[in-house]
Amino acid sequence: MDLHDTICAPATVPGTGAITVIRVSGPETFSVVDKVFRSSRGTVSGAAGYSVLYGSIVDPFAEASLEERFVDEVLVSVFRAPHSYTGEDGAEISCHASSYIATQVLTLLCAAGARLAEPGEFTRRAFVNGKMDLAQAEAVADVIASSSAASHRVAVTQLKGGYSQELAKIREALVEITSLLELELDFSEEEVEFADRSRLRSLLVSTSGKVQQLSESFRLGNAIKNGVPVAIVGEPNSGKSTLLNALVGEDRAIVSDIAGTTRDSIEESLVLEGITFRFIDTAGLRESTDWVESKGIERTLKMVDSADIVLALVDVTSSPDDAQRMLSSLAARMDFSCQQWLVLVNKIDLNKNVKTINKVVTSIDYKCDILEISARSGEGLDTLRSALVGKVKERFSGASDAILVTNARHHEALRQAGESLNSALCALDDGIPSDLVAQDLRAALHHLGTITGAITTDEVLGEIFARFCIGK
Amino acid sequence: MDLHDTICAPATVPGTGAITVIRVSGPETFSVVDKVFRSSRGTVSGAAGYSVLYGSIVDPFAEASLEERFVDEVLVSVFRAPHSYTGEDGAEISCHASSYIATQVLTLLCAAGARLAEPGEFTRRAFVNGKMDLAQAEAVADVIASSSAASHRVAVTQLKGGYSQELAKIREALVEITSLLELELDFSEEEVEFADRSRLRSLLVSTSGKVQQLSESFRLGNAIKNGVPVAIVGEPNSGKSTLLNALVGEDRAIVSDIAGTTRDSIEESLVLEGITFRFIDTAGLRESTDWVESKGIERTLKMVDSADIVLALVDVTSSPDDAQRMLSSLAARMDFSCQQWLVLVNKIDLNKNVKTINKVVTSIDYKCDILEISARSGEGLDTLRSALVGKVKERFSGASDAILVTNARHHEALRQAGESLNSALCALDDGIPSDLVAQDLRAALHHLGTITGAITTDEVLGEIFARFCIGK
Repeated sequence: MDLHDTICAPATVPGTGAITVIRVSGPETFSVVDKVFRSSRGTVSGAAGYSVLYGSIVDPFAEASLEERFVDEVLVSVFRAPHSYTGEDGAEISCHASSYIATQVLTLLCAAGARLAEPGEFTRRAFVNGKMDLAQAEAVADVIASSSAASHRVAVTQLKGGYSQELAKIREALVEITSLLELELDFSEEEVEFADRSRLRSLLVSTSGKVQQLSESFRLGNAIKNGVPVAIVGEPNSGKSTLLNALVGEDRAIVSDIAGTTRDSIEESLVLEGITFRFIDTAGLRESTDWVESKGIERTLKMVDSADIVLALVDVTSSPDDAQRMLSSLAARMDFSCQQWLVLVNKIDLNKNVKTINKVVTSIDYKCDILEISARSGEGLDTLRSALVGKVKERFSGASDAILVTNARHHEALRQAGESLNSALCALDDGIPSDLVAQDLRAALHHLGTITGAITTDEVLGEIFARFCIGK
Repeated sequence: MDLHDTICAPATVPGTGAITVIRVSGPETFSVVDKVFRSSRGTVSGAAGYSVLYGSIVDPFAEASLEERFVDEVLVSVFRAPHSYTGEDGAEISCHASSYIATQVLTLLCAAGARLAEPGEFTRRAFVNGKMDLAQAEAVADVIASSSAASHRVAVTQLKGGYSQELAKIREALVEITSLLELELDFSEEEVEFADRSRLRSLLVSTSGKVQQLSESFRLGNAIKNGVPVAIVGEPNSGKSTLLNALVGEDRAIVSDIAGTTRDSIEESLVLEGITFRFIDTAGLRESTDWVESKGIERTLKMVDSADIVLALVDVTSSPDDAQRMLSSLAARMDFSCQQWLVLVNKIDLNKNVKTINKVVTSIDYKCDILEISARSGEGLDTLRSALVGKVKERFSGASDAILVTNARHHEALRQAGESLNSALCALDDGIPSDLVAQDLRAALHHLGTITGAITTDEVLGEIFARFCIGK
């Protein structure tokens, strides 16, 4: 891909809405646009940056009357390098939202010397020209996709470079340790230890801890970005569907006024205080009453594994033995270090067995919150909603200044960096020669560098930006 | 509807593409935007018209850190009255294409004193503020919807006011005639004829002719706007589907690169030299061999009625009698003043009966073009395509300087104006008193005035602009 020519693409979808914006970027932007643009206010080449010109797009190539060559009345915004999104000379042509007009304008721009941009090419150029690092570029796509306050905040933090600064600090510390070790190598024949081993070790431990913390934030970050997965489990007729309807029903409006919130594979999703919750179907439980052996329970337990929060419904009218078996098998499966659960004692409006069931629940050997609710009457549901939000916020505050990893590529890089750091730590402890320790550290630096793009390959860049839409 | 407050709406569809543009218009635009916009380059209120500011949308109402109140990085284009689309102070906020962000920005703008715009309200304000007349405002919607070169050209002519100028000339002539007649009324007791009756009459005839010409252009204008309806008729197995596939198949790409070209109710459409043709299914013919009596033929003939061009396929292998009966029944139905037809002698690659069938076709008593084709081998299809385009262009050149009526509302107004003018002409010929003639003329002026909006009611305006999208 040539990154030094002049490109154009629609930045909005033609044919929908009132206007279409067509972006042009590259060294020839002004001369290309001037070939197809006529304005009584002068040329684009002569216009100041951050100014707008009103005029017409006219086909300069056809041999016909001016009237027949007229395409549209447009506004052209002018941006002069480096003060533009891409860092290059740029223009945004705002025309009527007609597919026909957009096609004509793009065709004329190409005839005048531009070419159609590849997906993500504007943002790729912004990265190449140092307007943003790779993590920020990736955040652009996340900002566009975010559909709740929390996911928006995480994406915006990343876009504004908060995450990159955190990584820069970690890399700085690693570079310091590595250079100390490498200095020793230069004097290796003299067997001098420049670096105090215990200080090195504590630096390495603290840096490794930060990398691990970031890496671990992915589970929460991913939940925030794509919705917090909540599994509702319970015996047949324990009120699962009633609960889901009661929770989602009255709040559906919050979801539906933001397009694209609902994912196809999810039964229902719900935004509470800016956090998206995705409720996961566990229909498998309905097919079996034998808790431990059946295939159905196995399927449900797999869904429990993928959930961040588990809501276990216990029906006050069910047998205490069944309830106990269900809760025990769930508890055995749960990873309490990264999952949270709530036991919901349902149907309290029936006014019976509540105490018996409560006794069963509290007798089981695990810690959990217990809420008494009636999905049918709505009793206790406000408390449940607050509890769901509380569970997520609790973890938020645990994450360092709300910097969360939301990108699988970053998570993988952090995981590999973490492994290299662990390996370095072991090597240090085992008294292995400095050059081998330094090698591990350089590997960690490499992995961290791929996140912001300090270290990267064309192949990786191609893969990242190909996922962008055209015009971004 | 209050047309003096400040409104906002997305001008592009949020959540698709790279950016979303949000429009603001009205007297408080600058102070409203300044409440939610922060820029190191100064305020919107202080910015020059036709300039762009880079900055952030920040929630000024929430009590939280600046970081948490940050919504997006945006560009704001500033337009100062009257140099804007609406003629009012205006701004266009260009933010990331996220539904969440668009909702946040609109919510903040409303909290800061704007309100969400009604559909078409920006264009309605442009009309109210004299930036365009009603016919031009309606052309905005047509420009957006146009999907071929021809429909685009017609819409653009109307948008640029060519059509309005034509109407203004007609109204001017009518006002002159009317004022001459009304002058007589003032002196009616003196029985003076100020106006030379024969000059009046010739003026009226020529004006009436122009109105009728415009009114008649609707059939073509509508065909250009929505596609020229072409009925393909023929006996079963005469090669109708093969012809359709041969015509559309290789040109489908031209259609599909313009979104929204294909209408659901139409079997296939095709753009040839910038003109959209809609081919109409006439499957009814397949069910019957009795040409004159059957219900099937009746249905097909109704489709023929609605077509502008009729392609009658005659199979060289069919019986000459059947061919003759089909062509006669079609010819009896056609309105040759506004329909055109082509008889296609098909399957010439079989090399038999071509002469016999040709003799049958030419023996029928009507004028038409005859083409020999083979839908299967493709022979003669280029000639057919040129003939289709030629038929439409022929009519184009007949229309006065390509000013075509494309809007049903305008057509109805022109029809009513034409009736009033005819009535005035009869009254003049019958020597009916001037005041009654003048009354007819005023009625014609009224109808013509409704087209450009010189005469209009809130109800009519409401109906017209309600059909626009929000943000236009």
